[in-house]
Amino acid sequence: MPTTSNRVANTPSSPIRRLVPYAEAAKKRGVEVFHLNIGQPDIITPQTGVNALQEADLGVIAYSHSAGLISYREKLVEFYSRYGVTVDTEQMIVTNGGSEALLFAMLACADAGDEVIVPEPFYANYNGFAKSLDITIVPITAHIKDGFALPAMEDFEKKISPKTKAILICNPSNPTGYLYSVEELEKLRTIVKKHDLFLIADEVYRDFCYEGQKHTSILALENMENHAIVIDSISKRYSACGARMGVVLSKNESFMVEAMKLAQARLSPSTLAQILAEGLIDTPQSYFGDLTKEYDHRRQTVINRLQAMEGVVCPNPKGAFYAFVKFPVDNCDKFCQWLLEEFEHNGKTIMMAPGAGFYNTDGLGVQEARIAYVLNSDDLNTAMDCLEAALKAYPGRLETNKIELDVN
Amino acid sequence: MPTTSNRVANTPSSPIRRLVPYAEAAKKRGVEVFHLNIGQPDIITPQTGVNALQEADLGVIAYSHSAGLISYREKLVEFYSRYGVTVDTEQMIVTNGGSEALLFAMLACADAGDEVIVPEPFYANYNGFAKSLDITIVPITAHIKDGFALPAMEDFEKKISPKTKAILICNPSNPTGYLYSVEELEKLRTIVKKHDLFLIADEVYRDFCYEGQKHTSILALENMENHAIVIDSISKRYSACGARMGVVLSKNESFMVEAMKLAQARLSPSTLAQILAEGLIDTPQSYFGDLTKEYDHRRQTVINRLQAMEGVVCPNPKGAFYAFVKFPVDNCDKFCQWLLEEFEHNGKTIMMAPGAGFYNTDGLGVQEARIAYVLNSDDLNTAMDCLEAALKAYPGRLETNKIELDVN
Repeated sequence: MPTTSNRVANTPSSPIRRLVPYAEAAKKRGVEVFHLNIGQPDIITPQTGVNALQEADLGVIAYSHSAGLISYREKLVEFYSRYGVTVDTEQMIVTNGGSEALLFAMLACADAGDEVIVPEPFYANYNGFAKSLDITIVPITAHIKDGFALPAMEDFEKKISPKTKAILICNPSNPTGYLYSVEELEKLRTIVKKHDLFLIADEVYRDFCYEGQKHTSILALENMENHAIVIDSISKRYSACGARMGVVLSKNESFMVEAMKLAQARLSPSTLAQILAEGLIDTPQSYFGDLTKEYDHRRQTVINRLQAMEGVVCPNPKGAFYAFVKFPVDNCDKFCQWLLEEFEHNGKTIMMAPGAGFYNTDGLGVQEARIAYVLNSDDLNTAMDCLEAALKAYPGRLETNKIELDVN
Repeated sequence: MPTTSNRVANTPSSPIRRLVPYAEAAKKRGVEVFHLNIGQPDIITPQTGVNALQEADLGVIAYSHSAGLISYREKLVEFYSRYGVTVDTEQMIVTNGGSEALLFAMLACADAGDEVIVPEPFYANYNGFAKSLDITIVPITAHIKDGFALPAMEDFEKKISPKTKAILICNPSNPTGYLYSVEELEKLRTIVKKHDLFLIADEVYRDFCYEGQKHTSILALENMENHAIVIDSISKRYSACGARMGVVLSKNESFMVEAMKLAQARLSPSTLAQILAEGLIDTPQSYFGDLTKEYDHRRQTVINRLQAMEGVVCPNPKGAFYAFVKFPVDNCDKFCQWLLEEFEHNGKTIMMAPGAGFYNTDGLGVQEARIAYVLNSDDLNTAMDCLEAALKAYPGRLETNKIELDVN
């Protein structure tokens, strides 16, 4: 029997999807499951894009340029200018999802054995990519008491080694919802310039900012031309996750040359998704206002309910559509499984993503879970009713774990 | 300035696309360029699939299951049964193009430093994937005098080392058009079973077979359950290259577990492309008869013309839509560039893919080039007129290099 590779064997299964079989079993028992575990929005994909695709004369569905259709890249140039980002069509490669953009960024920056520093908790799939490419993710812990703000620069300095090639952030953050300030990004700039590192920013949630806060792209910072690599995607912005349409952007010419080799090896991004995405760029700007308003309403619904539950610690996220929450329970892995296997409230229950899978440091996040507020507010309220009842009924409930938050 | 990774720096740029700037310059000068360099068919994508996509109520374009929509996988089960392949929905992962299927197969089979044996000439992008994943491709040379048949088993035995994890073939072959016989596949079975290796078969050209020959999938061979991994794609079969819709199939459970981790890390294949592909499976079977007839006509057009040119050596390919041809010239890299830079025949010229890029052994393929016969026969005849005239005019023309072919 041939044996499979160690690098993939050592890659953990997605913690977000581990509970799927329990959810399926619950549904078979007739229990309604509210999916707060995955960032799949319920918003209808805007018609501008759908019409572009469905009314196109497709003819031969051919490969596009490996970097993407020039017509789409030209529209992206205009699109990013709305965010204060000046790029040209040679500074971007259209990818099959933000995932492929991340794959290209990691491969072109880091050799096997190299290190990438990532503030934790972080998007668990970063591990999936890094492990299978023999890249070591070096975590720096952000703390719930600080609302998951950027860790101190001295923490970064301590972790930088000769093998460090990049710092990777997600801004606004999946899974914490934390939105980095310009000052925090400037601190990161200082450190990547001092140590000759790439700064990779996953900015796929750029359009989801609340309380009047604004997102700043690392490509909009001065003197970052050689260091900044941005990962982006239409998945969340236009609720088009299934289109698998991303882009990797950088002004570092060497990086673009190397990433382009990877792009050519896989020939082309999806032509269908590019036609959709090109249409989506014409979505009226009012869409974003409505979108943010809707998500802000959901955010407030969830945050207010969570903060009112005894023993629950929930910072106030300013971006994305996640809350990273500490519960008064023995173990959130068990709690989330119990919610699906043994609990129901009026025939309903909820599915959350256990927190430990978002940390690389053993023992962290055991009492935490990520909640995606991607359902309408009525459903979210019903889901919070379930959670509130569950916290009272759960056998592993702890008396209290109240933490004073430094921020919010 | 941060530095990029060595593994991608050591990856060669796509040899197929190196000449693109010269082709663009030729077009700017007003010269018509016949593209025989890339496997982009001119056949209209069947309406069954296009209708399925364009008439679908897309609503929220959501992630699919990481292994692909269950409805699509169920249709694939039926589809493969037409080819004598019995698989179930758990033995396949739908991918973003055959490229991603190959990425998953390589990563899940081989660690950094491991070796994969590939008969050369081979599809140049295999190098792009292998190099960036620190996998060594060990070439075994197939010879034009044998029509690029499978090299002798003793050649394989000599190359197998403790680091060998797999043998990778393309059947029918891109770039040679060679179709492996059942006997050849059985020889490969013997060797992979003896040495506990995976056999990865890229079968994306399975539907393109001529002269009454039939393609045999390695999944249809007995006693290959633990060894066979098949890469497939709708790109060529349905002329839908730009959909980026592939699949990786295996009955080896460990392999599927590992590949599934990679699939989950990138979340989902394209939902849009799956809707298209599901519709395409309903394409009437007569489509394939018409398709093969059309390509066979093109194949005969090109082969007859090439074989009639003095000094040109062209085996008779039985599959795919490529011919791998030896020319009486000093260097095909130069010749192909010259065709674009300095030559024209009645305002027209041709673009071919120089052969050396398809070999890993230095010095091989210098006089060879790959021709993709993906244009209609009239255009192919005109292209052959150009080639014939070019061979007379080219300053690096050699007197003769006639080789006796052992087969055809």
